[in-house]
Amino acid sequence: MSCKCYAALVPAGPLVPHTIERRAVGPDDVAIDIKYAGICHSDVHQAREEWGSAIFPMVPGHEIGGFVGDKVGVGCMVDSCRECQSCKEGDENYCATGAVMTYNGKYKYKHCQEYTEDGGKPTYGGYAQSIVVDKNYVCRIPDNLDLAGATPLLCAGITVYSPMAYNGLKAGQKLGVAGLGGLGAMAVMIGKAWGCEVTVLSRSEGKREEAMKELKADKFVVMSNDSDVEAAASSLDMIIDTIAAKHDIPTYLSFLRQNGKFVMVGVPAEPLDFHAFAIIPKRKTITGSLIGGIRETQEMLDFCGKHNIICPHELISGDKISESYDRVVKSDVKYRFVIDTSTF
Amino acid sequence: MSCKCYAALVPAGPLVPHTIERRAVGPDDVAIDIKYAGICHSDVHQAREEWGSAIFPMVPGHEIGGFVGDKVGVGCMVDSCRECQSCKEGDENYCATGAVMTYNGKYKYKHCQEYTEDGGKPTYGGYAQSIVVDKNYVCRIPDNLDLAGATPLLCAGITVYSPMAYNGLKAGQKLGVAGLGGLGAMAVMIGKAWGCEVTVLSRSEGKREEAMKELKADKFVVMSNDSDVEAAASSLDMIIDTIAAKHDIPTYLSFLRQNGKFVMVGVPAEPLDFHAFAIIPKRKTITGSLIGGIRETQEMLDFCGKHNIICPHELISGDKISESYDRVVKSDVKYRFVIDTSTF
Repeated sequence: MSCKCYAALVPAGPLVPHTIERRAVGPDDVAIDIKYAGICHSDVHQAREEWGSAIFPMVPGHEIGGFVGDKVGVGCMVDSCRECQSCKEGDENYCATGAVMTYNGKYKYKHCQEYTEDGGKPTYGGYAQSIVVDKNYVCRIPDNLDLAGATPLLCAGITVYSPMAYNGLKAGQKLGVAGLGGLGAMAVMIGKAWGCEVTVLSRSEGKREEAMKELKADKFVVMSNDSDVEAAASSLDMIIDTIAAKHDIPTYLSFLRQNGKFVMVGVPAEPLDFHAFAIIPKRKTITGSLIGGIRETQEMLDFCGKHNIICPHELISGDKISESYDRVVKSDVKYRFVIDTSTF
Repeated sequence: MSCKCYAALVPAGPLVPHTIERRAVGPDDVAIDIKYAGICHSDVHQAREEWGSAIFPMVPGHEIGGFVGDKVGVGCMVDSCRECQSCKEGDENYCATGAVMTYNGKYKYKHCQEYTEDGGKPTYGGYAQSIVVDKNYVCRIPDNLDLAGATPLLCAGITVYSPMAYNGLKAGQKLGVAGLGGLGAMAVMIGKAWGCEVTVLSRSEGKREEAMKELKADKFVVMSNDSDVEAAASSLDMIIDTIAAKHDIPTYLSFLRQNGKFVMVGVPAEPLDFHAFAIIPKRKTITGSLIGGIRETQEMLDFCGKHNIICPHELISGDKISESYDRVVKSDVKYRFVIDTSTF
């Protein structure tokens, strides 16, 4: 089955109209009629080959919303080994031999019809009008959610939801959200629905109004404002850190109360430093989290359905993807670009 | 009540015979006939005023073993606010307004008879023949344990036991111990009694035999040996890091399996750095821990009683304290110096 898509034909090339072939629908597969695809910052990194050698042509997109009769979604993974302890426990995202990523990956496991002796055919993502995916890696999107707005939940939503669940965040606790891009916005909305008091930790005053009014955050701390920083000391139970640039970890740690947890989901290029005294005296924790498993992604979607949470977004046509990439890099988006694949 | 002790009369001065006055025994107090005091590396730091301004004359010692009829012990704290959430939950070590340390502290809370308007009288520690302590800060030492060998449990023991308990270490899991001084030795012995497979992570080959034969460790990794390091990759559930000097955190993190925890109890002077990629892909955790609460210290002593664990040590007389300090700095001790106070 051939389908229209947008692809980067060469590293750092523009995203241009292209056509790819999808595999025949096997007994465990579903063919998804894709309507929307979110643009994640990691799409930009990979299409521009900033994370090491990549596979071209590349069809990015791991926030996929479409139909198989019902509304469905696909996130960052389309396959995994299914045999390791992580896979068996539903943590396919931590598959011991590596999950097959939705694009810029290879179908490397024998159980897939696209497996080949030389390492498997490449995966192509969601900037396309269709995709064929093993049904075990597809989630249901609740009926009440707008499909375009629900699409970013498949990466931005699960990435912040999973560490809240795994690290035992409780209703009534105080949650900090560092950085207010797509992940940060989702963390604020999901945190509020979780029953937490949510404080946004932002590097600029400029986002205060949208954080408080649109996203319903409870407090707003500007990191460059000493009195803001002082007032927030030792007040938070958990911080979800979505910042992907170098930042001053010890100051963020100072916001945690005893036993507080600092969870990194953004990946700055540089190493980060901290002093042991920043964590020992109040038994603080620095930890990380990588997207989430399929079962947990479904749980997150159901949670968002119950609380009517979708990601605020800007809908764009295919011809605007390259331009949108530049805006993503400048953080000039509230909070996600979602591509309308009917424009391909 | 006056009592003989060893004290540093001036910063970085030698430890010399001295006499101090202990308070009258109040209704909540017990007077302990001290027999032994352990030498902790932090005694050296404080007597030499390496951790900022200190109180002199100073009588160090926060590993105290003696008698009040029964065998008893006192650790790092002799008082706390008793009103904050941490104190109420038995985490006096994390007292919100600060526990009163056993020496080089001040009796700053009104409920103590040594409280004064100008901030309280100073505390004097265990290098002495007696001490008067509120009974709520005194623990029972099990009858079957040798008192001299049990004395270091009051700091070195609880410091490694507490994070094992708090972080949910389970029998059958794989524990790494980084650094093999007093704390490291206790971590190996307690970890074995916990039912764990224990791997020592050491910077030198020299400690292999004592780790394996005397302390009964299961495995020994020399950090400078590439094949040792490679073989240990992704194998450990938890690492107790007792190293108080700068070290390469990412290499230690590489030993953790998915969801593994790296617990810092040693405090290097320098900041430590790591890359977010060292913790995110396998959801690893870096955390810290500071001694333990009184209830938990009792639990640890009972655990050690049940498993017949004492700290291997070298018994010294008072006149050898200053010389022993130099040997502590050179790590020339297996694994703790314990002072026999009958020699004062």
